[in-house]
Amino acid sequence: MEKQGLLYEGKAKRIYETNQEDLLFVSYKDSATAFNGEKKAEITGKGRLNNEISTIIFEALKAKGIENHFVQRVSETEQIVKKVNIVPIEVVVRNVIAGSLSKRLGIEEGTAMKKPIVELYYKDDELGDPLINEDHVQLLEIATADQVETMKEMALKVNEVLLNHFVAAKVRLIDFKLEFGLTNEGILLLADEVSPDTCRLWDLNTNEKFDKDVFRRDIGSLTDAYEEILTRLGGNQYV
Amino acid sequence: MEKQGLLYEGKAKRIYETNQEDLLFVSYKDSATAFNGEKKAEITGKGRLNNEISTIIFEALKAKGIENHFVQRVSETEQIVKKVNIVPIEVVVRNVIAGSLSKRLGIEEGTAMKKPIVELYYKDDELGDPLINEDHVQLLEIATADQVETMKEMALKVNEVLLNHFVAAKVRLIDFKLEFGLTNEGILLLADEVSPDTCRLWDLNTNEKFDKDVFRRDIGSLTDAYEEILTRLGGNQYV
Repeated sequence: MEKQGLLYEGKAKRIYETNQEDLLFVSYKDSATAFNGEKKAEITGKGRLNNEISTIIFEALKAKGIENHFVQRVSETEQIVKKVNIVPIEVVVRNVIAGSLSKRLGIEEGTAMKKPIVELYYKDDELGDPLINEDHVQLLEIATADQVETMKEMALKVNEVLLNHFVAAKVRLIDFKLEFGLTNEGILLLADEVSPDTCRLWDLNTNEKFDKDVFRRDIGSLTDAYEEILTRLGGNQYV
Repeated sequence: MEKQGLLYEGKAKRIYETNQEDLLFVSYKDSATAFNGEKKAEITGKGRLNNEISTIIFEALKAKGIENHFVQRVSETEQIVKKVNIVPIEVVVRNVIAGSLSKRLGIEEGTAMKKPIVELYYKDDELGDPLINEDHVQLLEIATADQVETMKEMALKVNEVLLNHFVAAKVRLIDFKLEFGLTNEGILLLADEVSPDTCRLWDLNTNEKFDKDVFRRDIGSLTDAYEEILTRLGGNQYV
């Protein structure tokens, strides 16, 4: 597998083409950003941690039958994935009230919910990734009604798998954001990454935060938090 | 019918109990407010105009089989309605992009949509009436899933009736906000008001605005605009 030209650079990853048309090379960066890019930092080791954590989670999801773009981890900070066209919708699943939902509904952070809820956000930095509903998706023509339904169902299935996986690691899965993509054959795959950048993860007993809120809110060392998650997930086997 | 104690005072109306348990007395105020109450004015004649326009619209909707709380107009600024417990959800139907939707999705105001879209907002002044989805409604326990489905269906039916009604009056129905309430028997009724305070109404040919945006954006006389709507709807027959 040969890494070729840079296809796209995002806030946390660079995507390269490869010598195989249907595969891409993902390089996880050491950049941390928050508040739609307003807060930024370079944090050595972050790329390695997210690459490794994402690898563990994508493999766990695949083992439970959830199709995703992950193919293979190829270096400390790089992985190979299937090429997809990303659907510009962020699908958020929440088990416990936190972050923007706490502000939106005026409910205290940490309040558990009777059942998980799903939210759709329009992935658009200039607009600040606004909350949208299914009618907005149709208006924007960014996914079909069936595709949205499938994404929501897959997101809830991911939630079931991850809840169990994290509880076994003594971690509470508070909420997380997923992105999906379409292959050239029109198959919907879970894509992007699943890591402490895209999940809220609290200690099962103490509610200590092990996710990007550590950086957003300046409440500790991001790499210490992410290392803790990696270790609890049985990681660090590559180092 | 005897007007009794004040039950509730909102930004645009006062609600009184009556000597009949299942009926209320609504008094439309001359107050105009916008931006969640940040902009305020007293506008003589506004209460009369909205009372009369709402009467015409509620009667037109009833004639088309859409159940609503309206019983009878009893004075220039007052009407009798059935008593309901208001569901704290604002149901917005949009035919043309305008206002907050234009900002949310970055689409130019005035852009027509292929089909109407429906949005739900949590009616809570302190939170600024945030956009919500069906999962948030269940989390907040402010309506059942069936009730939300019924409200959305009724809102689209209201849209069909009003589109025709306004086109006949040479007016474009851009968007509008509805509120629903439950009777003591648990029956869902369209409630609140339907007026230029709660609808965006543009001239069919020139797109001149005849609604509360005239006040929000300081682009003319609110009473001139509302009088124009009343006249076009065949009103002023009570004066």
